[in-house]
Amino acid sequence: MKVHIKRTDALHGMEAQNQNQNTIRIDSSASGSQQGMSPMELLLAGIGGCSAIDIIDILNKQKQEIKDLQIDIEGERSNSVPKVFTKIHIQYHFVGDIAEAKAKRAIDLSIEKYCSVSQMLEKTAQISYTFDIKN
Amino acid sequence: MKVHIKRTDALHGMEAQNQNQNTIRIDSSASGSQQGMSPMELLLAGIGGCSAIDIIDILNKQKQEIKDLQIDIEGERSNSVPKVFTKIHIQYHFVGDIAEAKAKRAIDLSIEKYCSVSQMLEKTAQISYTFDIKN
Repeated sequence: MKVHIKRTDALHGMEAQNQNQNTIRIDSSASGSQQGMSPMELLLAGIGGCSAIDIIDILNKQKQEIKDLQIDIEGERSNSVPKVFTKIHIQYHFVGDIAEAKAKRAIDLSIEKYCSVSQMLEKTAQISYTFDIKN
Repeated sequence: MKVHIKRTDALHGMEAQNQNQNTIRIDSSASGSQQGMSPMELLLAGIGGCSAIDIIDILNKQKQEIKDLQIDIEGERSNSVPKVFTKIHIQYHFVGDIAEAKAKRAIDLSIEKYCSVSQMLEKTAQISYTFDIKN
């Protein structure tokens, strides 16, 4: 798996591209007019996206109809350098005809077993979640 | 630090947004026509971007003129679930009037001390780098 980054402005602006030419903008959150995700924000997007993919696959196999899924991810960082995440909290907001127990089981399976991003980030961050389901 | 994700298609397509409304597309690499970065690709973009920001700041303070910086990041994953990164190799390609020893020192300071992303990913992945400088 490969990613290429090129610098695009005079300070911290960058563009990252994967092997399928999908491109994202990266910038520092310290910048007054941030033009892309910061590297640490990419980790939060990564853990949310990774577990969403698992959860969608698991619930689809169980014929649970997901009409919508939105996720809020919040990270708390260490006060001292390196400012790693010490806590990550994920809120899953489902819309659909989804059994609560099946949603919980899918989230647990992702966070505790399948999601490679959470397995990496949990080495420094305590990971917690909540979820709600609307019809 | 907060990131919000919403699902944007019937399978794995998603959009993630930070608090400054910077948006990226996420998709699974398993998809035939991947429309965004995969979550694991976001980690590679994160470690490259994070160390680039440190290196730019350090070399700027030392009055080294960086005309261009491009970075290739490659990750090797475990064969078994969870497929965490076991190795990450970063290649830094500098263009500019930059002393080799200063570039090496800046990279070392980032990877070993300042870059919070590398401090998190190194818990499962062995991180290595090379660099070259052109005038």
